[in-house]
Amino acid sequence: MILGTVKSTVVSTRKMPNLVGYKLLLIEPVYGNINQLIVAGDSIGAGIGEMVLVTTDTTTQYAIDRQAPIDAFIVGIVDAPPVEGK
Amino acid sequence: MILGTVKSTVVSTRKMPNLVGYKLLLIEPVYGNINQLIVAGDSIGAGIGEMVLVTTDTTTQYAIDRQAPIDAFIVGIVDAPPVEGK
Amino acid sequence: MILGTVKSTVVSTRKMPNLVGYKLLLIEPVYGNINQLIVAGDSIGAGIGEMVLVTTDTTTQYAIDRQAPIDAFIVGIVDAPPVEGK
Amino acid sequence: MILGTVKSTVVSTRKMPNLVGYKLLLIEPVYGNINQLIVAGDSIGAGIGEMVLVTTDTTTQYAIDRQAPIDAFIVGIVDAPPVEGK
Amino acid sequence: MILGTVKSTVVSTRKMPNLVGYKLLLIEPVYGNINQLIVAGDSIGAGIGEMVLVTTDTTTQYAIDRQAPIDAFIVGIVDAPPVEGK
Repeated sequence: MILGTVKSTVVSTRKMPNLVGYKLLLIEPVYGNINQLIVAGDSIGAGIGEMVLVTTDTTTQYAIDRQAPIDAFIVGIVDAPPVEGK
Repeated sequence: MILGTVKSTVVSTRKMPNLVGYKLLLIEPVYGNINQLIVAGDSIGAGIGEMVLVTTDTTTQYAIDRQAPIDAFIVGIVDAPPVEGK
Repeated sequence: MILGTVKSTVVSTRKMPNLVGYKLLLIEPVYGNINQLIVAGDSIGAGIGEMVLVTTDTTTQYAIDRQAPIDAFIVGIVDAPPVEGK
Repeated sequence: MILGTVKSTVVSTRKMPNLVGYKLLLIEPVYGNINQLIVAGDSIGAGIGEMVLVTTDTTTQYAIDRQAPIDAFIVGIVDAPPVEGK
Repeated sequence: MILGTVKSTVVSTRKMPNLVGYKLLLIEPVYGNINQLIVAGDSIGAGIGEMVLVTTDTTTQYAIDRQAPIDAFIVGIVDAPPVEGK
């Protein structure tokens, strides 16, 4: 998974029917190329500025109730930024 | 998913039979390396210049009716570019 | 999918039995890091210098008759390089 | 798989129910962009500073007992850093 | 698939039970970022210095007899480095 920070919501009115009901959030990676923002689905209720754990690829399907064309999904909200060695 | 802008159509006459019927669009990523354009299938009717949401990998299969060798598919058209903090 | 140009054939005599019968082609990406060449399976008959459409990952399995350990496969030959705005 | 070094634990109280029970560890890649840290699940008991082998993508599911939205998982602890030619 | 050169073996005593029996090899990519070495499973018997064809992702499962958490696997040994135009 990657660690990311929620930057904003993404609104799409014309979308696939099986995407309806998921909040879509723009995520800035904490590590690596921070300019490479991605869009992840959310059902936990992550808020702007929160640090989240995002899983990608087909493993997203184990985070949702019905199959959907979503390749990134928030699976957890991180309590505090990790501290090296702890 | 990634956010991208539709740049042009991609025409392929000699292609796999199970690709027939899908519009293929060249997509420029909004974030990250914008030179790394990809080709995505489309069934929503995205137009040149529109900002779209693209899912990748095997999750594309949940956006189409029958299985096909397509690793990127447009799943939504974004209403407006996301604004940080909103 | 990515757009790529066929550069050469890749010959492997000692290989997995379920790879036998597929032509293996070295592909140079048209966009992004053009030094990051990949090897894709081919059953359409793409020739050296042709621009092709390559799907990756497990979606390759929908381009072949029997399952095989191939993570990139040519799914179409592009008629002409895409022109922005068309 | 990639080789990585365990840097710290990642704590997430609000997370998907099927993530409960897995230790989440922050991993620094040994090769490539070492700033691109990822979070991997662990059930072997890897410790801070140990060099581990991480598998990604849906192949993680073969390392766990029940399906879960985890795209990186520790599958081995490396005895010693690999030495070229051996 | 990617082309890579076998650099060394990777030894892991504490590992997932379903990884036992596969040789693990450190692979240097021939193209792209050659510093981004990966670890691939091998059952063909590739030797140090040989150029190999590596498949990634879940497609590795079609190269092995039983499912295992391995996201890169050697599927062929290349006869000779590819020559452009041939």
